[in-house]
Amino acid sequence: MAKKLKIIFLGGVGEIGKNMTAIEYNNNIIVVDSGLSFPNIDEMPGIDYVIPDYSYLVQNQSKIRGILITHGHEDHIGALPYVLQDIQAPVYGSAFSIALLQHKLREHKVKEVKTHTVDDNNKVFDIGCFRAEFVRVTHSIAGAYAISITTPKGVIFFTGDYKIDYTPVDGRAIDLARIAEIGKEGVLLMLQDSTNVERQGYSMSERSVGQKLDDIFYQNIHKRIIVATFSTNIHRVQQIINCCIKYNRRIAFSGRSMINIAEIAHKLKELHYPKDMIVDLARINSVPYDKICIISTGTQGEPESALTRMSKDELKKITISDTDCVVFSSSPIPGNEKMIYNVINNLCKKGADVIYKDLSEVHVSGHACREELKTMISLVKPRYFIPVHGEYRHLKQHVDLAETLGVPRDNMLIPEIGDVIEVSKGGLRKEEKLNISCIMLDGSFVESSDMILRDRKTLSEDGFVIVILNISASGNLDGEPYFETRGITVSKDIEEKIKNKIMLSFSAGDFREMAGAEIRSLIRKSVAKELDKKLKKHPVILPIIFEH
Amino acid sequence: MAKKLKIIFLGGVGEIGKNMTAIEYNNNIIVVDSGLSFPNIDEMPGIDYVIPDYSYLVQNQSKIRGILITHGHEDHIGALPYVLQDIQAPVYGSAFSIALLQHKLREHKVKEVKTHTVDDNNKVFDIGCFRAEFVRVTHSIAGAYAISITTPKGVIFFTGDYKIDYTPVDGRAIDLARIAEIGKEGVLLMLQDSTNVERQGYSMSERSVGQKLDDIFYQNIHKRIIVATFSTNIHRVQQIINCCIKYNRRIAFSGRSMINIAEIAHKLKELHYPKDMIVDLARINSVPYDKICIISTGTQGEPESALTRMSKDELKKITISDTDCVVFSSSPIPGNEKMIYNVINNLCKKGADVIYKDLSEVHVSGHACREELKTMISLVKPRYFIPVHGEYRHLKQHVDLAETLGVPRDNMLIPEIGDVIEVSKGGLRKEEKLNISCIMLDGSFVESSDMILRDRKTLSEDGFVIVILNISASGNLDGEPYFETRGITVSKDIEEKIKNKIMLSFSAGDFREMAGAEIRSLIRKSVAKELDKKLKKHPVILPIIFEH
Repeated sequence: MAKKLKIIFLGGVGEIGKNMTAIEYNNNIIVVDSGLSFPNIDEMPGIDYVIPDYSYLVQNQSKIRGILITHGHEDHIGALPYVLQDIQAPVYGSAFSIALLQHKLREHKVKEVKTHTVDDNNKVFDIGCFRAEFVRVTHSIAGAYAISITTPKGVIFFTGDYKIDYTPVDGRAIDLARIAEIGKEGVLLMLQDSTNVERQGYSMSERSVGQKLDDIFYQNIHKRIIVATFSTNIHRVQQIINCCIKYNRRIAFSGRSMINIAEIAHKLKELHYPKDMIVDLARINSVPYDKICIISTGTQGEPESALTRMSKDELKKITISDTDCVVFSSSPIPGNEKMIYNVINNLCKKGADVIYKDLSEVHVSGHACREELKTMISLVKPRYFIPVHGEYRHLKQHVDLAETLGVPRDNMLIPEIGDVIEVSKGGLRKEEKLNISCIMLDGSFVESSDMILRDRKTLSEDGFVIVILNISASGNLDGEPYFETRGITVSKDIEEKIKNKIMLSFSAGDFREMAGAEIRSLIRKSVAKELDKKLKKHPVILPIIFEH
Repeated sequence: MAKKLKIIFLGGVGEIGKNMTAIEYNNNIIVVDSGLSFPNIDEMPGIDYVIPDYSYLVQNQSKIRGILITHGHEDHIGALPYVLQDIQAPVYGSAFSIALLQHKLREHKVKEVKTHTVDDNNKVFDIGCFRAEFVRVTHSIAGAYAISITTPKGVIFFTGDYKIDYTPVDGRAIDLARIAEIGKEGVLLMLQDSTNVERQGYSMSERSVGQKLDDIFYQNIHKRIIVATFSTNIHRVQQIINCCIKYNRRIAFSGRSMINIAEIAHKLKELHYPKDMIVDLARINSVPYDKICIISTGTQGEPESALTRMSKDELKKITISDTDCVVFSSSPIPGNEKMIYNVINNLCKKGADVIYKDLSEVHVSGHACREELKTMISLVKPRYFIPVHGEYRHLKQHVDLAETLGVPRDNMLIPEIGDVIEVSKGGLRKEEKLNISCIMLDGSFVESSDMILRDRKTLSEDGFVIVILNISASGNLDGEPYFETRGITVSKDIEEKIKNKIMLSFSAGDFREMAGAEIRSLIRKSVAKELDKKLKKHPVILPIIFEH
């Protein structure tokens, strides 16, 4: 039997987040990225993180040659602390990606993992039967790479998350020349980031935010300035620091991840500042308020973040007033809008000037817009094209876009999680799909189930009702039924009616010679009916029977 | 004591929705609008609607002279079926607003209410000591009015929700001439819609959507077309119907409110179509698919809407395929994005072309942008200005905007719910605030409480644990504790540990001579500690004790 080249989609397609793709040839597997996603609270109440179901990799542990990381965002590396507990494989990525991973592994107490650091002088690796070349791209994080993987059947090109920034803050532009060369050498299949396929034109350069921030620092020279941004967006942080240097402000980092990541990036020389500019947040009152800038996490209105707590006057040392200018140099992750605007409203109430994306260009996206996606397809000129990183609507629009550039419809495919696609000169062919969905991590990283979530959803809308019956040896009810509720208002009248109905059923002998399970089921139905009729509510109903 | 003119804010300030304002002078009160809001599921799980706390009006029933409606959107009339059960007052509004209200009152089985219909020939009303003049404005609903109220102390001008549309679909433009005249006559106080204060420039005319829809009908001449929009946006519906007439398609209305409101608007001659164009949705298969257009509700991804059910193949008669073009002529209400995009993704998966606001200008807002707000302030030239209809950040920006037009900061104020503002030549003065928040309607329109919601939030994230103890007369434990959970995963190990700890406490006599409440409290704490330590979860814990 001829050997097959297969692409296996474990996450990141038909959804936003938890990107994970495997390439398999004979007894060789390499994995590209291994991310998590933050669940929508309506769909997965109480769940902290969702990671890909990587059981296929566990089953094929012996074939795994390496895990390749395009960049260090949570949706590309966040699952690794879990995956690396079950799978042994060396990890390849930029110094910054690897440093972020190592930090995570220490937090999760995961033992030593073998890593290979990619840099400009060391970017091609032979891994099993594959050769992987990392190609520099620009994105909203330092150390981001596309990966060109030469397989025995041809080249597979992963764009990773990227934008085309010709004037990046660190001066290290996307390596379009090498990408063009790879395209010229011939690419069998390209997988491209679909995040911003709905946006026309080009994304703005990260540097444009620097100019806007400079304006804000200039106009607010007599105020304290607080800038909230994503801690991994080192180039954004650098531009804020540059403003601090120019306008002679000292810097206080706020938020655990901001402090940690700034330190990591500073050590790696990805972030530059004189160490004596930094003030501990607890000591900022020793500096005049117009000579300080707080660089903070909390862009998403997270309840525990320092910024959210400042907005509610919960931080002793920092009181927000009309001498503050607060900048959200960020965009809302869909679903967080309400929380973020609550924080903004509270900051405004305290008198602060609050500047955010709806009002000013204080953020740019790190993902390619339509014209950039077209540039990439035109340079790489892949024979086959599969859009990744997006919901179905994004993937569909991406395929439509590629078609306008001459990629034949038959040479493209919209993948779903679990899809196994054979790639050959003959075309893309779907093999039998893996039966996987995802792993939901709950509280102390326990796996949760659909049943638990169904109960939580019911509980969140309609609460619960407990009915306890004590039954004597003779099968009679011993005392009144015990009735208690939480999360639902049941009037005394309705409660009495429900109890009386149960007592009547017992005295009429309706439950005679029935097993406990049967009695419980009948009581559940009867209570449900009453609550639907009277209250249109459908709580969790838990009848409990004690036989004495 | 001199008589005071007071404005009382019962809703719609510091929040989006449930607009309700009262004006009081001596023993006269009039109410402007009486709306509901749809709660954020994260903040108020299981709650269907929120309405203003109108207890102040109930207490002052004898003073109430009338309720004035600016327009018929839910956030302006939705509370009336509740309010009018407790308060007797005539209602004033446009024919369309009154018709929508009457429809609601019938559904809620509210008995006869006295109404006065506003139209171009009948727009000034003497109500108690007030004279109210309705002034035509343009908005995303037919029959929208600003209201100028002459009080014994001067004129109060409510803009209501509006935009400045010079080319509205029904040809009845905003009456800027009359507004200018009112401004010239002198306005003491203006209250203006703040919804779009964050948007620069002007809103586009409703008519621009008609052109875009025409393009879509032209380009999809061989497809079935489904357009989802807001049922009360009669002018949008008219423009869709105009396309149907031009391109020779019959019309099927889908969704209860679309069918009802189209009928109401048709009767009032606000919506025009030949009756024989209409096909029953159940019969659309009798018409060729490229000769039909379905006009549907479901723009917000509501689970029960026909459009959502079509997207999941749950409607027998309508199968979505690649011969469908589905247009969302709407925008997401914040918080609904996830649900809407789920529907869009599912429609795309079935092969439909889906066109929505991110891709094409198929929707315009009905609210004034910054330049329109400036036009209104410049024409009305109020002495005092209070921004309404918005979160705090909107109200603050609106005050900043008015200041740029010369309204002194001291002549403005940002109101909160419950505020009572005395308006006099001497200025705006806050009187003692009413202690009110809102009324949450749960299930069959029962009032809910904060405690119920707190429980629901805990239940939704962490579920619940029940521990039942049977205690003998001697104070000893009778059998093992009974342990049951929902919405949380507790391993057998942890369960056994919890039970053993309780049993040990009993045998050690820890609970000797304690009252039941005290024992329950100790057990709750002990179980909570164990679950926090082992699982980092904090469920509702319900210890129940039976003493035999």
